Amino acid sequence: MRSALRAAARGVRGANPVVGAAVLSASGEVLHVGHHRGAGTPHAEVDALRAAREAGTDLRDTTLVVTLEPCHHTGRTGPCSGAILEAGVPRVVYAVGDGTDTARGGAAALMERGVDVRAGLLAEDARDLNARWFRAQEQQRPFVTLKIAQSLDGRVAAADGTSRWITGEAARGEGHALRSRVDAILVGGGTLRSDDPSLTARDATGGPLTRQPLRAVMTTRPVPADARVRRGVVRAEEHDGRFVHLDTHDPHEALARLRGLGVSHVLVEGGPTVAAAFLSCDLVDELWLHQAPVLLGAGAPSVGDLGIGTITAASRWRGDPVGVPDDRAVAPVGEDLRWHLRPARGTPDADSLDAGASRPGAPATPQRHPASRTPAGPAPTPGSGPADARGTATNSPDDTSSAP
Amino acid sequence: MRSALRAAARGVRGANPVVGAAVLSASGEVLHVGHHRGAGTPHAEVDALRAAREAGTDLRDTTLVVTLEPCHHTGRTGPCSGAILEAGVPRVVYAVGDGTDTARGGAAALMERGVDVRAGLLAEDARDLNARWFRAQEQQRPFVTLKIAQSLDGRVAAADGTSRWITGEAARGEGHALRSRVDAILVGGGTLRSDDPSLTARDATGGPLTRQPLRAVMTTRPVPADARVRRGVVRAEEHDGRFVHLDTHDPHEALARLRGLGVSHVLVEGGPTVAAAFLSCDLVDELWLHQAPVLLGAGAPSVGDLGIGTITAASRWRGDPVGVPDDRAVAPVGEDLRWHLRPARGTPDADSLDAGASRPGAPATPQRHPASRTPAGPAPTPGSGPADARGTATNSPDDTSSAP
Repeated sequence: MRSALRAAARGVRGANPVVGAAVLSASGEVLHVGHHRGAGTPHAEVDALRAAREAGTDLRDTTLVVTLEPCHHTGRTGPCSGAILEAGVPRVVYAVGDGTDTARGGAAALMERGVDVRAGLLAEDARDLNARWFRAQEQQRPFVTLKIAQSLDGRVAAADGTSRWITGEAARGEGHALRSRVDAILVGGGTLRSDDPSLTARDATGGPLTRQPLRAVMTTRPVPADARVRRGVVRAEEHDGRFVHLDTHDPHEALARLRGLGVSHVLVEGGPTVAAAFLSCDLVDELWLHQAPVLLGAGAPSVGDLGIGTITAASRWRGDPVGVPDDRAVAPVGEDLRWHLRPARGTPDADSLDAGASRPGAPATPQRHPASRTPAGPAPTPGSGPADARGTATNSPDDTSSAP
Repeated sequence: MRSALRAAARGVRGANPVVGAAVLSASGEVLHVGHHRGAGTPHAEVDALRAAREAGTDLRDTTLVVTLEPCHHTGRTGPCSGAILEAGVPRVVYAVGDGTDTARGGAAALMERGVDVRAGLLAEDARDLNARWFRAQEQQRPFVTLKIAQSLDGRVAAADGTSRWITGEAARGEGHALRSRVDAILVGGGTLRSDDPSLTARDATGGPLTRQPLRAVMTTRPVPADARVRRGVVRAEEHDGRFVHLDTHDPHEALARLRGLGVSHVLVEGGPTVAAAFLSCDLVDELWLHQAPVLLGAGAPSVGDLGIGTITAASRWRGDPVGVPDDRAVAPVGEDLRWHLRPARGTPDADSLDAGASRPGAPATPQRHPASRTPAGPAPTPGSGPADARGTATNSPDDTSSAP
């Protein structure tokens, strides 16, 4: 299970939990490992079994260890329970149950077909690994990533409002890679007005990446008709021009709206007021902070007022080595530094996550958490909501110089 | 020379330059290395020769490589030139000249006594290694270290002014170790009034460290008679109660005054206004930034207005692995992160630093920079200036809970 947990940590945070799996020999030796690489890619079990198949491993006397209960969801690629049965693995050990409406029942299905299933091994570690993902599911909202690019002294712009570029090319590259993994990018009205960002995911040459998220602006003021965010990327054949105006100041309302549009993972990119709104509601599950070795001494702070009056009430975070290029929560990126953090508090009540299934050999029981894993295959397409969620594709000139 | 440069980087920044030395065999093999560990400890050459002596190495056909011209200063332990002659090393290669009034002439003295002396090897690297130290010497002022303990978002205190403790015990321990290495600690009137710090160097148990710096407050307002900074540490036998009130807002004036008191290395500890004053004048040679994984959203910023209007005018820094515990410019310290930085700009004109001596074999000529290295032995005692520079020792109760 430790190998599986380590493998899980190679995944990325977002719409899906990070999950790892290992195939053990009869003597307990780790033969193969696998992990889930994010929405739209094979689940960890399937990844590990694929490795075993490619190596020609005889699975008849092996054990499959997985950090989350195998799903029982029939999506594009079929349930993991089915894949396990098909592979002929006789024993399955998992850490925590999957209480999903759609996915649950994997353990029960396997047991019904004669697989020896045990649960609860290192359950606490496995729960902790995805604590904020479980919480987001519980709250029936998208997973929220906050990204900040700031100076050493916590400024995201200089006194005159300029912010291009606080961080260097490598950090910006990480930011664009992150954009390409989420379902939506959200900014506030201040960022809209000061930066007029296009909010597109681009490569090093400024060209659009294949996957473009929904572009959301959260403001109670109008979004100008000529705002770049309405247009999106410039090559019509490579984007879908998706844009949504979230006419609210309430992060809960914004997230509910985005969820209705099929968004499972949203990237909040600024500015200080929007960041503070999400942070104050404890709605940030993951924080990417790129920090450049520069001092500004004035200009917009990275985070607005959080309502924190005294030092003991500070919002506390901890390093998260999951889903970053070099497995280091804090690491240099070019000349800058990247922090990858998650909240140090606010984890859900661990015991409530896999009651029943944590008793070795017990059948998986229905869970009260509406957790769900997106099945393998493309993520749900945002834009299925209200008509104003869709913008219009344009063929305007390349605007790479204009976005944050 | 590369070995010597690497050894030099093990030293600490401050009153003296970092210097490394290596003893090479006739075939060029590195037999021993040495480095200078800070004011009051043996110079690098002496350190390397001591290692050779302890190992019983025959020095008759060796070469001593050193990153800075051996000093010719007769202090408590005699000049390095004398130590080299006494050891009988026939060849010396150094990188950059020492243009000090007191120390210069080492190369010439060695040559006069028949030693084969060459200069200029990797001179640029050696100059860069101590660029800010050379600059401070040139400006005839103490070396200035700025230390900041801040939140992720660049706050040094919460909205209500509380700041104990933003960073954890390990980071505070590094701060106290730093205090014990400097000649003076300086804070501004704001920090004095909000924190009433004692500005003493303490160990993990709160007890005073052996070496206590001069305590300086830079403010044009009066320093209350009962301010802790006037009292210093609490065990009379272990401290000297030194305090100075610098009645100015001008960092140049404050530094001149401190220099007059025998201070070669000053630690600026805050607050934002004082930090900004020194930064704006490009008077910070070294920056220690401890950053805790917390967000505050409000409260005093770490650095006040620097007069920087736009992003391209940002004050740029670079990682400095010299003189930090694990040779990493950015490293975790407990739950916090430590940045060790030096200015990315503002290095002096390198060519002016060792004119003459950079010509291999040329005699060291008088230099125009009044650089000086503190001779081995205790650093000059601050407090030899005006009478008000000396406070009064007290026996008040332990005040470890009251200082930043």
